[in-house]
Amino acid sequence: MVDTMSWKDGTLIILDQTALPSAVEFITCTNYQRVCTAVKRLEVRGAPALGAAAGFAMLLAYKELVHTTQDILTVYAKAKEEIAQARPTAVNLSWGANLMYKAATSMASTGKDLNAIYTSLEKLAMEIYTEDIRINKKMGEYGAEILPASSIILTHCNAGALATCGWGTALGVIRSGFAQGKVKMVYADETRPLLQGARLTAWELNEDHIPVTLITDNMAATTMAHKHVNIVITGADRIAANGDAANKIGTYGVALIAKALQIPFYIAAPASTFDFKLTSGEQIPIEERAPQEVRQIKTVPIAPPNIPVFNPAFDVTPAGLISGIITEYGVLRPPYKESINKLHAQVLKEDKYTWKV
Amino acid sequence: MVDTMSWKDGTLIILDQTALPSAVEFITCTNYQRVCTAVKRLEVRGAPALGAAAGFAMLLAYKELVHTTQDILTVYAKAKEEIAQARPTAVNLSWGANLMYKAATSMASTGKDLNAIYTSLEKLAMEIYTEDIRINKKMGEYGAEILPASSIILTHCNAGALATCGWGTALGVIRSGFAQGKVKMVYADETRPLLQGARLTAWELNEDHIPVTLITDNMAATTMAHKHVNIVITGADRIAANGDAANKIGTYGVALIAKALQIPFYIAAPASTFDFKLTSGEQIPIEERAPQEVRQIKTVPIAPPNIPVFNPAFDVTPAGLISGIITEYGVLRPPYKESINKLHAQVLKEDKYTWKV
Repeated sequence: MVDTMSWKDGTLIILDQTALPSAVEFITCTNYQRVCTAVKRLEVRGAPALGAAAGFAMLLAYKELVHTTQDILTVYAKAKEEIAQARPTAVNLSWGANLMYKAATSMASTGKDLNAIYTSLEKLAMEIYTEDIRINKKMGEYGAEILPASSIILTHCNAGALATCGWGTALGVIRSGFAQGKVKMVYADETRPLLQGARLTAWELNEDHIPVTLITDNMAATTMAHKHVNIVITGADRIAANGDAANKIGTYGVALIAKALQIPFYIAAPASTFDFKLTSGEQIPIEERAPQEVRQIKTVPIAPPNIPVFNPAFDVTPAGLISGIITEYGVLRPPYKESINKLHAQVLKEDKYTWKV
Repeated sequence: MVDTMSWKDGTLIILDQTALPSAVEFITCTNYQRVCTAVKRLEVRGAPALGAAAGFAMLLAYKELVHTTQDILTVYAKAKEEIAQARPTAVNLSWGANLMYKAATSMASTGKDLNAIYTSLEKLAMEIYTEDIRINKKMGEYGAEILPASSIILTHCNAGALATCGWGTALGVIRSGFAQGKVKMVYADETRPLLQGARLTAWELNEDHIPVTLITDNMAATTMAHKHVNIVITGADRIAANGDAANKIGTYGVALIAKALQIPFYIAAPASTFDFKLTSGEQIPIEERAPQEVRQIKTVPIAPPNIPVFNPAFDVTPAGLISGIITEYGVLRPPYKESINKLHAQVLKEDKYTWKV
């Protein structure tokens, strides 16, 4: 499996996902601004991958600060904001950036030396990265348990190895299920406008020899109804405390269709995807992207040049449409207010990062 | 408004819809085989336009036969089959071809001279064409009545002037409603894989200064939920006697979403779209098209080269999801078995073509 990102000699190497599937190319980020650009351009994407990218971006930011004469924490707070705002919907960006920022400030308050702080921050960023892979494998285990023996799965966008540091969330569940002989077919929605399903999901499942069939987004209903789809699994970009889940545009429609056809609809997302302070999905900011993404495909125009466009990057699936949320702590079930509250308590109790030395 | 097709000096001139919106080009068909090719390539498309194209194709076929020594009616029956099969889902092709064939055989049985038959057939083909425009205007009148005073409409694919001989079915209703000041906004699904919404609907509404916003297909749910859409109108390619309606792929999903969000879902289709002998939508053959349509957009590859694809061109919306069917005879309401049966009786009673002289 190809590496989504790696940290090498003080630089972040990112797989350029906008070039897939026609080319496997890498981008070398030597400063945090380049990571922000990569996030905006979707060269790196997927909620969990963004969490790790934010960690490395904060590490790059700190690296520069070691040699500055400015007030380090003020500048560092600015970098944190910039990274968190690179894409407003995904909570993982600010989650990763905050984790690094808190570590830096708590170490600074003890009077620790700048280079020593940097070394500890590097350890933390690496832990966010490796922890993500561990988390995905754990989600895979829990998720595989709920897969029907002969699963015909529909998925939307790319919640795969490419959306994480490895293994994947929704596709991690599929990978684990496939290893257990449970996956008969995966239908991948192409996921307009940026075609993450066609470019990334189809590509990575095919690379792993997992049976996949590509469809356009508007074929989801007839595929679910007539191709014996027995489960839908997607990722999520932000989940509110009541279970409402923001994910790639189109997920809401898929969930409504699944509900109407009585097909269980699951989300696979790590605990870092939950925004426990939001009481409902209505509070999740929805990023709107450039009209050109809809008016053209790559560089080919497909619509009248100045036609008005509505281009939200995400939608919110109400909790009532979600059969369960697969996390690294187990599968959450309705009522979500309760199960998510319990998850929150577990997360707060746990102190899993060992960087604090 | 540009002409979808026109009959000039014994040839059929077709607007090449695959070139829109970047170019307005025309194809000259001098034989019926070229019309069949145009149908297969979607250079001409849309159920009502296909009915008229079938009429002109049959006229071109007869024109050749005037000079043949073969058994005319056998060869003519073969042409009829070929035209009807150019696209298997749209019933209008065989409707138009049959109308011409029946006229030819009934005139032949009276011993009428070949050239005189040709002249009568030309009159009939022209009547199918002009009658389609009259029918669309009539549908527009009935449809405009049911539009809310401040309509925010979602439509799928292109059921416009371009899908007919002029005015349009679903877009005809919108045109008539707009003329009455009732249309505030039209959201047009782009309609992958062949993008009839982006290329044709957005183009023709924009040309007529009707406010239109383009969205990708998977934005329909969030648009309906959050942009105050208060009615959905699409066309249809074939409607069974129980009201089940085949239309462009994606219509079924849109109808399920509309139902879930309690937004009325209407179909606008002339009586020629009804296949009264089919008792349910399950009997409608669904054309599957080439995987390349999904793997690439125009000539741009967007997925791994040999990835398996499911590419049905149509889906069937069950009658239970349809609030009403707008026809040139009025708006049909559930229970559809009853209202469609009544429509059938009206169609049989009526003898609208005057060619029989």
